[in-house]
Amino acid sequence: MRTQILQLLRTHSGQYISGEELSRMLAVSRTAIWKHIQSLKNEGYAIEAHPRLGYSLRQAPDLLSPKEIKACLESQLLGSHIHYFTDVGSTNNEAKKLAAEGCPEGTIVVAEAQTIGRGRLSRGWFSPHGKGIWLSVVLRPPFQPQQAPKCTLMAAVAVTKAIRNFCDLPCGIKWPNDILYDGKKLVGILTEMNAEMDAINYIVIGMGINVNITADEFPPELAEIGTSILAAKGHPVSRLHLLCRILTELEQVYQQVVREGFAPILEEWKTLSVTLGQAVNVIGPDEQYSGTAITIDEDGALLVETDTGLRKVIAGDVSIRPRQPANNS
Amino acid sequence: MRTQILQLLRTHSGQYISGEELSRMLAVSRTAIWKHIQSLKNEGYAIEAHPRLGYSLRQAPDLLSPKEIKACLESQLLGSHIHYFTDVGSTNNEAKKLAAEGCPEGTIVVAEAQTIGRGRLSRGWFSPHGKGIWLSVVLRPPFQPQQAPKCTLMAAVAVTKAIRNFCDLPCGIKWPNDILYDGKKLVGILTEMNAEMDAINYIVIGMGINVNITADEFPPELAEIGTSILAAKGHPVSRLHLLCRILTELEQVYQQVVREGFAPILEEWKTLSVTLGQAVNVIGPDEQYSGTAITIDEDGALLVETDTGLRKVIAGDVSIRPRQPANNS
Repeated sequence: MRTQILQLLRTHSGQYISGEELSRMLAVSRTAIWKHIQSLKNEGYAIEAHPRLGYSLRQAPDLLSPKEIKACLESQLLGSHIHYFTDVGSTNNEAKKLAAEGCPEGTIVVAEAQTIGRGRLSRGWFSPHGKGIWLSVVLRPPFQPQQAPKCTLMAAVAVTKAIRNFCDLPCGIKWPNDILYDGKKLVGILTEMNAEMDAINYIVIGMGINVNITADEFPPELAEIGTSILAAKGHPVSRLHLLCRILTELEQVYQQVVREGFAPILEEWKTLSVTLGQAVNVIGPDEQYSGTAITIDEDGALLVETDTGLRKVIAGDVSIRPRQPANNS
Repeated sequence: MRTQILQLLRTHSGQYISGEELSRMLAVSRTAIWKHIQSLKNEGYAIEAHPRLGYSLRQAPDLLSPKEIKACLESQLLGSHIHYFTDVGSTNNEAKKLAAEGCPEGTIVVAEAQTIGRGRLSRGWFSPHGKGIWLSVVLRPPFQPQQAPKCTLMAAVAVTKAIRNFCDLPCGIKWPNDILYDGKKLVGILTEMNAEMDAINYIVIGMGINVNITADEFPPELAEIGTSILAAKGHPVSRLHLLCRILTELEQVYQQVVREGFAPILEEWKTLSVTLGQAVNVIGPDEQYSGTAITIDEDGALLVETDTGLRKVIAGDVSIRPRQPANNS
């Protein structure tokens, strides 16, 4: 009922709608309408009540609640089922649990804060309350498990496009799937899968997007390597609308991949990359080396030209080396 | 305590050991010993009690209980933790749950019966009580997720060697990981993994081994395609000793792969294969075709020579075509 009231208030944005009209349209008493309006106010909605004109929504709270998401969601599949937490250990863990229990494709898990947010290889992810988008998406793609790493590239493309378009921020992708602005990490993506040898049961794409974290809120160890959209732009942006934009972009690239395969997305990844053409250090599972990042191949692996030849990087950490000043400078 | 009593009875196999001696060695009263002996008898152990000589173990029940397994286990890692069920939905599901909760590598799940035993791609697996080995093994291999399909070939090699050596039954592997005898299925293997894009969290190798199922116990739809060791040999074999042999073989090939990579195991797989050299029908995710199975490549994919060239089979069902009688026969 509260979702329906909000929807009606939103369609009358900037105007008033009377309690009587709401009561008629939703077939409940005016007292019931009044009670729901009070609850919405308690949740943080700024609703003006005018004795003659009725109610008007002035401002919604900056929450990623299902009510709010549903009101601005444009994607069909992604976000069709929303699990929302004020605090959660890790959205990926929740999403994996739901996926193992058989939740439908497109289910998302969103939290205001994560207490044990995880990055790749069990590294932590700073996820303060109400300042970022801590999101996991469950997909059940008809791909072979071997193709799963390309899902992570696909997600990086979608999120980069959403941030570039919605925030007008020229961020780029560091292989395989970190999104950087000005050399600092804006977004981390952690993709996990559960698969038989010849079929994926499910994939969970987790994203940590630093939205409205001020520079001085980062813990000291992240101050030099992390950034946020707020820090980059100088003003906060709507987490809600960015989230919905990301879901729309991800749905589009996912449907494109299912339809046409990965090739077009890999081309798009290349144009959004900040890694290609750079001098890089590679720390692989067994060894370290340096070289120049040339391109990615059809499997999504990074090709690095080294003194001893071309190397294919499937796993590992790749860091971009700062340009050396020339000797004669 | 009962495990220790059993162990002592076993080390005195064919002889008697007095209640007094047991009581002294285990530092408990003779009454306590007597009570434990009664419990063991209730569990199905045939223990003879002689008024003067003491106790002698005549026969152990054919159960895959942790007590029994521990008494004959030779592997170090595999079986170090045993979860045993009289009835369970699916040993793979239990193993995945345990693995997600962080159980150590080498944990095994064994059941006397599965109520919803699963094969590949959610197909069922007939798992009657006390007649087979319904087993799942949790590994945490230091491989890339791309290498996981080769774990399933590794498991097929281990189980085939165990059955060949322990039962003297010339069974062989149908690509990728069914074990056949006389063209009928003796063993199915279902490998599932949980992984990040560049690290495996865990792999569960599930095996359904038809041991002592009589031919007429198979449901009608399996009568033509399933077989058992009992049906093939004409007499039952010890599930317990075969299970322990499988764990030993699997541990050996696993350790070899960690040490030397997959190449030697892939060679061994080829020598144990019944698919290579045969005319096959391939039903892939998107299409069907026929050809001759030539070999497996370094990724474990099956290479099939067709009229239109060499095809690489990563996923799908491959059936061996019965030889056509020659036209002039």
